[in-house]
Amino acid sequence: MKTYLECIPCFMQQAFKTACIATNDGIKIKEVLDSIGDMIKSIPLQNTPPETGNIIYQKIHEITNNHDPYREIKNRHIKEALSLYPELKKTIEKSKDRLLTAIRIAIAGNVIDLGVNKDFNINDDLKIILKQNFAIFDYDEFKKQLNKSESILYLGDNAGESVFDKLLIEELDKPVTFVVRGRPVINDCVIKDAIASGINNVADIISSGSPAPATILNLCNKSFLEMFKNADLVISKGQGNYEGLSEVNRPVFFMLKAKCNVIADHLNVKENDIVLKNINSDLKIN
Amino acid sequence: MKTYLECIPCFMQQAFKTACIATNDGIKIKEVLDSIGDMIKSIPLQNTPPETGNIIYQKIHEITNNHDPYREIKNRHIKEALSLYPELKKTIEKSKDRLLTAIRIAIAGNVIDLGVNKDFNINDDLKIILKQNFAIFDYDEFKKQLNKSESILYLGDNAGESVFDKLLIEELDKPVTFVVRGRPVINDCVIKDAIASGINNVADIISSGSPAPATILNLCNKSFLEMFKNADLVISKGQGNYEGLSEVNRPVFFMLKAKCNVIADHLNVKENDIVLKNINSDLKIN
Repeated sequence: MKTYLECIPCFMQQAFKTACIATNDGIKIKEVLDSIGDMIKSIPLQNTPPETGNIIYQKIHEITNNHDPYREIKNRHIKEALSLYPELKKTIEKSKDRLLTAIRIAIAGNVIDLGVNKDFNINDDLKIILKQNFAIFDYDEFKKQLNKSESILYLGDNAGESVFDKLLIEELDKPVTFVVRGRPVINDCVIKDAIASGINNVADIISSGSPAPATILNLCNKSFLEMFKNADLVISKGQGNYEGLSEVNRPVFFMLKAKCNVIADHLNVKENDIVLKNINSDLKIN
Repeated sequence: MKTYLECIPCFMQQAFKTACIATNDGIKIKEVLDSIGDMIKSIPLQNTPPETGNIIYQKIHEITNNHDPYREIKNRHIKEALSLYPELKKTIEKSKDRLLTAIRIAIAGNVIDLGVNKDFNINDDLKIILKQNFAIFDYDEFKKQLNKSESILYLGDNAGESVFDKLLIEELDKPVTFVVRGRPVINDCVIKDAIASGINNVADIISSGSPAPATILNLCNKSFLEMFKNADLVISKGQGNYEGLSEVNRPVFFMLKAKCNVIADHLNVKENDIVLKNINSDLKIN
């Protein structure tokens, strides 16, 4: 997905928010704003938004000398999500369609997204998303593909959301490899967040190598690319991964909530809609 | 009031919004964003936000070759506000304290502010503001000063809001001069908007000469400055005028709703609070 003009003021807002979390030093925060301002004219609109995000967040880390500004917030989100786990597990166990309920819960976890300029309340969102109609609902295809899959690649998104991903992975009942970012960026899940979320008990964990807040294939490592090419089923969580992979040349199941207008338009759904979308269902996996 | 770092991403958001209203040409919109991005490092933080706003909106007008992008929207807001006028007049006539109700209505009109990155619904806001407690309420002082005043200078803010200002001017029952901006900027009231709102039937109308979305004294014309110095009572509507005049050296009564965090903090109130605030009550008027 290309970068839309609407993304540019959003980059500035994200940069300000992250700079304020990364440091209390107003001079450094101003330096971040000046630097992102200077960068605007050279943003390649043909690139995906998280490719630009990668450069912006790297810049913020350098200027503030804080390479993991969301660490504390991530830890808190994981802790909060873990406290919800037992109740959510029961919700799944009591439901008529366990797999679908687990998918809904995994999508609800996707509201824990600090790259989007919105507040969220995970409990409120859970209530809504457990009942909400899907705007795109490729569930039959998903079940069919799941049944015949022997290897599943699960592209994680945010820390905290990862606890909700664990609940879905438990329902998939297949060998799963859970993929995280190559370095801390916004509140995205890295290896230690996946472990703190208990993913190591239900899946293998690997890093894609991508330093961007998304799976950007030309920034990923070889071993991930090999797995991505060959996996029977790829599940991609969240907006960032969608932005990075919407034009990729293999089947992918996207699970996300459309949290901004640009993504909603691109998916041809409304803001706040939830989506289970398959792309390239006609392509064979190599 | 100085410019806060938080204002900078807001400038970018405002510029994008205005550029999209001013033109459909994506290349020009991008040129606006590039140009505002370049400008960030030279924004003097000691200046008031509307002084920077003045430069930004001028730049947008130049690049898009549209010097009154909000014209249609302003006309619509005035029309909508005029349609509410008879009902609001009755509300005032039926109320126990006509002056206070008129002040509340004039403040409710202040939500018609397109420089703030928020949606608004005038009917919803009217209902709330007619009952809302004031966070700062210098009403007794206001009545006292009003009683002994022979000349009132009323600094208008937005087009549409001006219809609500008319209702308050009618309750003041004194000679009033209504002040508008020197040129179109955002949806601020200029002379023709004041006339379309019917202000000419209840007050004299003058331009401050300020091209900024605020009364910035060093951008105002001599005749306005003379009146500003000598008026028995100055009523200042809205955030922009507060930003421009919060440190001025004469008594001023500010009437506004705190629509952004920066203004709310500066006033030591909460976002969405309403305010009737006097400054420099101890200073004598020259």
